[in-house]
Amino acid sequence: MNQNQQLLIKNILQAPLQDNPDQEITYAGTLRFTYAQFRERVARLAAILTAQGVKPGDTVAVMDYDSHRYLECYFAIPMIGAVLHTINIRLSPEQMVYTIGHAEDDVILVNSDFLPLLEQIRGRLDTVEKFILLSDTEETPATSLPLAGEYEALLAASEPLEDFPDFDENTRATTFYTTGTTGLPKGVFFSHRQLVLHTLAGVAALGSNATQGRFHREDVYMPITPMFHVHAWGIPYMATMLGVKQVYPGRYIPEVLARLIATEKVTFSHCVPTILHMLLSDPKCAKFDLSGWKVVIGGAAMPKAICAAALDRGVDVFTGYGMSETCPILSLAHLSDAELQLDRETQIALRTRTGKALPMVRLRLVDDNGAEVPSDDKTPGALQVRAPWLTASYLKDENNSKKLWTDGWLNTGDVACRSAEGSLRITDRTKDVIKVGGEWISSLELEDIILQHPDVAEAAVIGKPDLRWGETPLALVVPKKGATPQEKEIAQHVKSFVDKGVLPKEAILLKARLVEAIAKTSVGKISKVTMREMYLKDGEE
Amino acid sequence: MNQNQQLLIKNILQAPLQDNPDQEITYAGTLRFTYAQFRERVARLAAILTAQGVKPGDTVAVMDYDSHRYLECYFAIPMIGAVLHTINIRLSPEQMVYTIGHAEDDVILVNSDFLPLLEQIRGRLDTVEKFILLSDTEETPATSLPLAGEYEALLAASEPLEDFPDFDENTRATTFYTTGTTGLPKGVFFSHRQLVLHTLAGVAALGSNATQGRFHREDVYMPITPMFHVHAWGIPYMATMLGVKQVYPGRYIPEVLARLIATEKVTFSHCVPTILHMLLSDPKCAKFDLSGWKVVIGGAAMPKAICAAALDRGVDVFTGYGMSETCPILSLAHLSDAELQLDRETQIALRTRTGKALPMVRLRLVDDNGAEVPSDDKTPGALQVRAPWLTASYLKDENNSKKLWTDGWLNTGDVACRSAEGSLRITDRTKDVIKVGGEWISSLELEDIILQHPDVAEAAVIGKPDLRWGETPLALVVPKKGATPQEKEIAQHVKSFVDKGVLPKEAILLKARLVEAIAKTSVGKISKVTMREMYLKDGEE
Repeated sequence: MNQNQQLLIKNILQAPLQDNPDQEITYAGTLRFTYAQFRERVARLAAILTAQGVKPGDTVAVMDYDSHRYLECYFAIPMIGAVLHTINIRLSPEQMVYTIGHAEDDVILVNSDFLPLLEQIRGRLDTVEKFILLSDTEETPATSLPLAGEYEALLAASEPLEDFPDFDENTRATTFYTTGTTGLPKGVFFSHRQLVLHTLAGVAALGSNATQGRFHREDVYMPITPMFHVHAWGIPYMATMLGVKQVYPGRYIPEVLARLIATEKVTFSHCVPTILHMLLSDPKCAKFDLSGWKVVIGGAAMPKAICAAALDRGVDVFTGYGMSETCPILSLAHLSDAELQLDRETQIALRTRTGKALPMVRLRLVDDNGAEVPSDDKTPGALQVRAPWLTASYLKDENNSKKLWTDGWLNTGDVACRSAEGSLRITDRTKDVIKVGGEWISSLELEDIILQHPDVAEAAVIGKPDLRWGETPLALVVPKKGATPQEKEIAQHVKSFVDKGVLPKEAILLKARLVEAIAKTSVGKISKVTMREMYLKDGEE
Repeated sequence: MNQNQQLLIKNILQAPLQDNPDQEITYAGTLRFTYAQFRERVARLAAILTAQGVKPGDTVAVMDYDSHRYLECYFAIPMIGAVLHTINIRLSPEQMVYTIGHAEDDVILVNSDFLPLLEQIRGRLDTVEKFILLSDTEETPATSLPLAGEYEALLAASEPLEDFPDFDENTRATTFYTTGTTGLPKGVFFSHRQLVLHTLAGVAALGSNATQGRFHREDVYMPITPMFHVHAWGIPYMATMLGVKQVYPGRYIPEVLARLIATEKVTFSHCVPTILHMLLSDPKCAKFDLSGWKVVIGGAAMPKAICAAALDRGVDVFTGYGMSETCPILSLAHLSDAELQLDRETQIALRTRTGKALPMVRLRLVDDNGAEVPSDDKTPGALQVRAPWLTASYLKDENNSKKLWTDGWLNTGDVACRSAEGSLRITDRTKDVIKVGGEWISSLELEDIILQHPDVAEAAVIGKPDLRWGETPLALVVPKKGATPQEKEIAQHVKSFVDKGVLPKEAILLKARLVEAIAKTSVGKISKVTMREMYLKDGEE
């Protein structure tokens, strides 16, 4: 009799190793391995870690750029029952100390570039027993860290692990930290089962569109979202399941990326809008042909201007939606064949939407009473999700975990509308939407409209407590240099959009206030928290 | 905190109901429902069954042609925690009594065409408490069966069930019986988890080929394998997950099928070779344009002549492999873009192979010692499989279940070779392969070669026990009318293929014997069991 076969990360490798063992995985256009060799290296890495004392349940962390080595860690570490912690290499030293300690990392595989950083915080890394060096050169750098060895040398000296164990599919496989604008980084975690299901559903969703933006078996894949960030959206696992050629680019240097796309014939990638913008606008990238390159854009809303610029270069861009807490992919904005015939502006609007649910995903939009709102593309609701691949909680953090889940639904923190055709459109963050009476008004939409006023340089709209309405919109407006708009003019400008039917009538309650600057977070986003503190104190206004 | 979301059949409906609620499901080109209406009918059917006393764990059987009603049963019955038993309407009355009793059916939904059959065996259906009539007309037929009502009338009178329960994904969802050449029908069964995983992996595999034979979101789907047979290969679940238009054809009348393909613009189907042959050769079907129609062929090897005839009509045929015990799909013979450029004969050879493994499936070929054989497309091995969707055992049948599983591998009973490119080719059944010394010789290959002799009408090759070799091939040959081949000529003919390197050298040990007829099973296949009994008795030969 059979055991009910567990969904384990090692099973992702089964089909490609039988169906396509000679397919290629390359690093930075220099190193090349077949899938069969990759599998052998995974087995050697597993043996190394085991020899270093790593046991099931231990945590092994990685600090590296996007590399074949990282992909090997994606498989070898969970496949021996350990937890892969993908360290965000952009964290501050303080945050790094916190996350390494909180995740209880036992071993860190570290790229030589990050040795100085680890040396600096070594004294505070209480849980870490071993360091393994990742390096692109043969030289061993001078370091005060007690290195257990260098990755390639250890691999060469090791025998491959003969067989990988079976265990419960609910075993934790990965963990990483999400950083908000406030508070400590929060850890999320995913099991083998969750990653396998996310991989299957992702391959199904990315493959089965009729034409636009498909990811298929003859694509060449290159991630351009860091492998520490939500395991590069889980797409390296999908690429491996498909058995496609994979290209790992190392550090993100626009010209290097564009050259790899051209020379390795990359056809499928994913990145945040900023990276795409860099590639499209860097003069050094201009000579490379990007046409036919398919790119899923996520992590932030894709500005229509970037979408247009990409289409001009023949790049097939569209949006994917998700978050660290959701493994991450929940929806994709694939265009149907009929939609591909629509005019350019309409296509851009569709490509920049949040898109349609993946198989097995339920996305619902609810009002303040938890009732679902109509799919009219106008009525906003708080976006909640059910899917088999959501983080069970924040790691060792009961307080934040309670806020994450409501009655078995995960709160995304986003506000969205849905069209009759089932396509979502995120309009705001839950905490930023302005609730005027029963009406939810998107602060982002108001900001967009105010920015269309010729005298406005910057704007941030927050909700101001109001006895009668609950909240009314307060627009904080920085005039353009030399311009002197009246506060009433701004409100009048907004009212003209109410008259056009673009905004709900409650938006006429908006008041504008001229300010000298808009507060920003460390990554350059508007800090509404700070703006509220500054302008909504007792007695103000 | 979330529960680890269970993989339930109801979740297959989540994405299409959000993404594509107005998509169509049609029956026989006459009735049309949207997915939203379909979901409502499923909820009404669930309410009816609950009102009739069906409880979780009960078994509800269906006897119908391929219909929208059957699809509703695929969902409603498992979604209330009951087991769907898809009754093979072609069984003999004796077998039907056996399977209904063995599955412990509580309720049967029966098409009016099968009422006479049930009336005949009613006295022996001890477990069945209720019958619900399925009918395409408004008339209620005269019957001695105690009908609880007619499907449409009951649906109309019922309120939809408000919500479907959550339960353990390992709950049994479906069961059905496989009939061999000998012995009683054997029951197989699949859980919600297994069906969901088969669906996800099937959508992933069918969708992600680059070009040939893809099943995508803008296809129109029509099954032409009966819905009682391995739940139509599980593909109605895949079609629903994709949210495509679905066409259910009722009874299989070639002209009706061809007309539906043309009028409903069907682009994706699956069937056994016989059905495809009927469609291609029936003069009444000749006027319908079948070009662009994609068809997965399974259930039996696709003869090259049928493959060629299909390609001549512009039909994109290729092979899928699996069995009742495996849910069923294990592999698909998709052609790569490069393979689509090859000459016609090579393409036919590729399209009639068994193909490559689905994601999460491990197919291995082993020799008598359980060691894996090389992937050289020459060395045959017994085909064993691991996958998350294999029947755990035969239902209430320990003896046969023991033979099904070896060390966690399911024995398919097939012998196959694998190419260096990972593509399988079934060469024989395990029990029919002839093991001469260490060499496995395919009885089917020998028969094919003997049939190429100009004087041969029919041939069957069986293994004859041999003290030195273990077995040697014995060819039982029916000469063509009027022809008088010598037995030695046949052996010489076979030897010429050994000399060409087509057959292993041990094939020269073949002896031929002229016989008057080849024994057949009730479905027209060669009965090697009978031939062995007739020609291998003690002292014979």
